[in-house]
Amino acid sequence: MKFARLGPVGQEIPVLIDGDATFDLRSLTADIDGDFLSGDGVARAAEARANGQLPEVEDAASLRTGAPIARPSAVVCIGMNYAAHAAESGSAPPEVPVVFLKVPNTVVGPNDHVHIPRRSVKTDWEVELGIVIGARASYLDSPDDSVAHIAGFVTANDLSERTFQLEESGGQWSKGKIAPGFNPTGPWLVTPEDVDYQNLRLRSWVNGEPRQDSSTADQIFGVDHIVWHLSQYMTLEPGDLVLTGTPEGVALSGRFPYIQPGDVVEIEIDGLGRQRQEFSAAP
Amino acid sequence: MKFARLGPVGQEIPVLIDGDATFDLRSLTADIDGDFLSGDGVARAAEARANGQLPEVEDAASLRTGAPIARPSAVVCIGMNYAAHAAESGSAPPEVPVVFLKVPNTVVGPNDHVHIPRRSVKTDWEVELGIVIGARASYLDSPDDSVAHIAGFVTANDLSERTFQLEESGGQWSKGKIAPGFNPTGPWLVTPEDVDYQNLRLRSWVNGEPRQDSSTADQIFGVDHIVWHLSQYMTLEPGDLVLTGTPEGVALSGRFPYIQPGDVVEIEIDGLGRQRQEFSAAP
Repeated sequence: MKFARLGPVGQEIPVLIDGDATFDLRSLTADIDGDFLSGDGVARAAEARANGQLPEVEDAASLRTGAPIARPSAVVCIGMNYAAHAAESGSAPPEVPVVFLKVPNTVVGPNDHVHIPRRSVKTDWEVELGIVIGARASYLDSPDDSVAHIAGFVTANDLSERTFQLEESGGQWSKGKIAPGFNPTGPWLVTPEDVDYQNLRLRSWVNGEPRQDSSTADQIFGVDHIVWHLSQYMTLEPGDLVLTGTPEGVALSGRFPYIQPGDVVEIEIDGLGRQRQEFSAAP
Repeated sequence: MKFARLGPVGQEIPVLIDGDATFDLRSLTADIDGDFLSGDGVARAAEARANGQLPEVEDAASLRTGAPIARPSAVVCIGMNYAAHAAESGSAPPEVPVVFLKVPNTVVGPNDHVHIPRRSVKTDWEVELGIVIGARASYLDSPDDSVAHIAGFVTANDLSERTFQLEESGGQWSKGKIAPGFNPTGPWLVTPEDVDYQNLRLRSWVNGEPRQDSSTADQIFGVDHIVWHLSQYMTLEPGDLVLTGTPEGVALSGRFPYIQPGDVVEIEIDGLGRQRQEFSAAP
């Protein structure tokens, strides 16, 4: 199943996408949030759709696409999770998952305009598979328990400012990860039964030129391991977003220029949808 | 003025504390949250109290004290912000503020029981002055603009697991900062006009023995600088919590044992109130 949120910023309505048709979920829930995802929301949505009880959104194509989830309580990120990206960043592959955080107000729609922060000269793209948590996860016994705590998957762009992250940070990366709009998310939340999540092609382009092109099969720590591992250190809550790291092909490698005003960045994960962001200088 | 939240977890009521008396704010607001703090909530509370319109909470002393703010959207932390603490941690004083994040579900009441995480052998205390944001802050022009964006100040304990933070983290500290209950906050939110915030004594004790005893006058980066600095990298939102770093005297120094099951940790900041946490092993 495929969920989305459509409409102006702050007024998005929850919808179910079935083939080419879009259905309004407001009779079932006010939002695609932790309460909806942790309860029987997904099952009730499926049942209502099967019974023909959901009205179609006729003008869906004309609406802005928001992030497919309400603002999460936490955005947890895994760093250096593809060996070739660790190498291009000048690091050895990590022996344990490296964890950092973004702030939840970075989460925006997949095609929203993005401002390059003031003073930035090294704004960079990072296509990433995002996990949306569906059930509270604390001290899971085994990675095999993880999938039962996952509501679905999203395409995410973990935008990063490398000067802020690496050169004026004292070594803690979050400073370069938290600018407004620095986490375009979506277009869709796709439930696990429809995602071969450890075998997804993920790609990025800048102004139409290819940048990243890898597979989640190349992750050092897979999705099941990540959720289990995080649950040993924190309580993951329904609706939380976990970004699983980016593959090689970012500007930090030195192979490509950083994002400039006027650039268009696109990212895509097979089955999870494509994003397109235009960039301009922050006012 | 002094605000608090009293009652069982998840059912706290907002109150105003005036001398020895406690007044119920529910006629004005459902919670001490970003909406209350960024609007005219504080002014309306003062007016209602002056006019005798707030009912007294007779059984206040028998109620649990919650965190004095609703769950924030972000908990932003400054690391190594006292020179003597940087030295005891084996680091040089930072040249710019070092920023890391905690997750909002770490925020609990000041006297709530705390679980030492599973596998932990290095759980540590950190008394810190906490800033609560009162108005959205983005690209502030000058540190002089900061105080207008501050709703008030709180006592906070930035509990930390040093093995998780430093030895199995790949260098990113958040992994040791995000265990459930790892951010006791309160008892009170005190508004800026009642706080000489750059001249506050802050102390901690373990089982009654003194540990930390310093002053916010010793901060490398002061409150005004921190809020201005953060606003260059992110948008601070009303209700967000900013922890300003801890002074020397933590277990990481090697001078004291880490927290053991059965230990009692107390912390206090003059004028902002005292906390007391009993620790036990996580089940």
